[in-house]
Amino acid sequence: MGTAAARDARVRRLCRPLLVGDAWVLHRFLIHRSLRIHPITDLAEYLNHPDIINVLHVPHPGIRTLRLGFPQKVGGEAACLAVRTAAGLALQKRVAGVVTGPISKESLKMAGVPFPGHTEMLARLSRASHVEMLMAAGPLRSVLVTRHIPLKKVPGRLTKNNIVSAVRWIDPWLKKVLGLKGKPRWAVCGLNPHAGDRGLLGREEIGVVAPAVKALRTQGLSADGPLPADVAWAKHVQGEYDAVASLYHDQGMIPLKTLYPRGVVNITVGLPWVRTSPGHGTAFDLASGRKPYSGADPSATIDAALWAMKITRHG
Amino acid sequence: MGTAAARDARVRRLCRPLLVGDAWVLHRFLIHRSLRIHPITDLAEYLNHPDIINVLHVPHPGIRTLRLGFPQKVGGEAACLAVRTAAGLALQKRVAGVVTGPISKESLKMAGVPFPGHTEMLARLSRASHVEMLMAAGPLRSVLVTRHIPLKKVPGRLTKNNIVSAVRWIDPWLKKVLGLKGKPRWAVCGLNPHAGDRGLLGREEIGVVAPAVKALRTQGLSADGPLPADVAWAKHVQGEYDAVASLYHDQGMIPLKTLYPRGVVNITVGLPWVRTSPGHGTAFDLASGRKPYSGADPSATIDAALWAMKITRHG
Repeated sequence: MGTAAARDARVRRLCRPLLVGDAWVLHRFLIHRSLRIHPITDLAEYLNHPDIINVLHVPHPGIRTLRLGFPQKVGGEAACLAVRTAAGLALQKRVAGVVTGPISKESLKMAGVPFPGHTEMLARLSRASHVEMLMAAGPLRSVLVTRHIPLKKVPGRLTKNNIVSAVRWIDPWLKKVLGLKGKPRWAVCGLNPHAGDRGLLGREEIGVVAPAVKALRTQGLSADGPLPADVAWAKHVQGEYDAVASLYHDQGMIPLKTLYPRGVVNITVGLPWVRTSPGHGTAFDLASGRKPYSGADPSATIDAALWAMKITRHG
Repeated sequence: MGTAAARDARVRRLCRPLLVGDAWVLHRFLIHRSLRIHPITDLAEYLNHPDIINVLHVPHPGIRTLRLGFPQKVGGEAACLAVRTAAGLALQKRVAGVVTGPISKESLKMAGVPFPGHTEMLARLSRASHVEMLMAAGPLRSVLVTRHIPLKKVPGRLTKNNIVSAVRWIDPWLKKVLGLKGKPRWAVCGLNPHAGDRGLLGREEIGVVAPAVKALRTQGLSADGPLPADVAWAKHVQGEYDAVASLYHDQGMIPLKTLYPRGVVNITVGLPWVRTSPGHGTAFDLASGRKPYSGADPSATIDAALWAMKITRHG
């Protein structure tokens, strides 16, 4: 629920964490009884103490009907209110960045929110013309060229232009945030088994991906591909590339989560402010019972907060 | 080229390795000059000595025109001849099993061979009614429900029946070969991001994968799913499952190759004899120059040979 990340010593060394949401929920389901929830309505009321969790109280009138562990309208509405408030603070530069928690796409839908997830909602709230989703874990990074769409729609959505624009968008950001001396080295994945095996197993590599890689190189970027996705990832892990351009969600998420099951971070690049998020779902399965979320692992949220600080410093 | 695996001490402790192919190629491009190529035309001529590489000579009249490192007709023809010969020996039970080398699908096509790869060719040569492809690396195993087809064809090819039959086919084999006490525990992947997120990101999970998992459970197997592919793999790596049912080639190959870049083994289950293969391609990029294949890593071929022996003992 964010409290573990807010009290983490590494996080607190680098910033003053503030939770945003309905303080009643946090108070009601607080795991660490040594902590004190301090609801505030203005940032001036912030109390800087390791045992105090400051919560900017964003009340939802129906919050007491919330049942943990299920997608529901009130959950979607409360999450949406909290996200809007946090985004507003970031836009006004009153906070350095925002770490969003996981959100239930189903709850959002029940609440009538017309976005499939945070990234799209935040882009609209911030009037950002172009955002890209970068996933990071340990020394690995990948941009997802297509995101939350059914697999069968992926081949039709891929264009030379969306591959080029995703890589071009992330490239200077990556160089700056990681402090790379040379050009970021990109591996661009193919779509099909063996990257299409010269057209025998699919032709998107020939028609779409290879022209995109050629265009990136012409524009002065360091990009190789189309590489078979398994080869691209194996080489990225071995340090031969700085980042992988994944053409669809699972092409990037499978290797990241397999290698770093608790440490995947989602970074939105292109907002006028810093936004990161843990790269996992709502864990509704851990949210029920007498001690909700007591078995949850805060690592990814902590990593997301540390990434947010890194971007604030270098981005 | 197989010589490194044939002289490997672990391999030689467990079997008497025999290479099958045109002996001229092996002689011409031999890296280890301390070894001697011993061409034979009958198994009775086998010489059992660590410095001698026995080669069942399968001559191809045009072999001297072979240029290493390129797909070509003569390469496809010679490979096909060697595979047919080895399969014949296995069918006659004159060898315990066959480890096939990587093959160029393009060379096969140039040679007019009407199979996309080994697996399909061997199934036909052995009149096997049903074969499945199991990929193994370290403690990880995955059946590929669909194999060498373009990604855009995957959703249309998936059926409840091919998921059920792939898992059912491998299940008893896995129990026997791995010596498992209980039922093999299967994780069945979803097709879409987040396994479709209850239908919001695709409906194949609801229409195809969930009914397949239900059928497997009804038939007494231990199967969970559809799980998001990244979750299924992360849990398999953590030991929660004995095997993953991957719905398409890269869903299985990306995590295997990312974690074990040099140790993926391809096992055909359903032939009347034992067949394994290294899970990588021809490495044509390493085949040119003055010392062809000198930078190649024989680990996967050695692992394939060790798996073949394991299956011979327990399968």
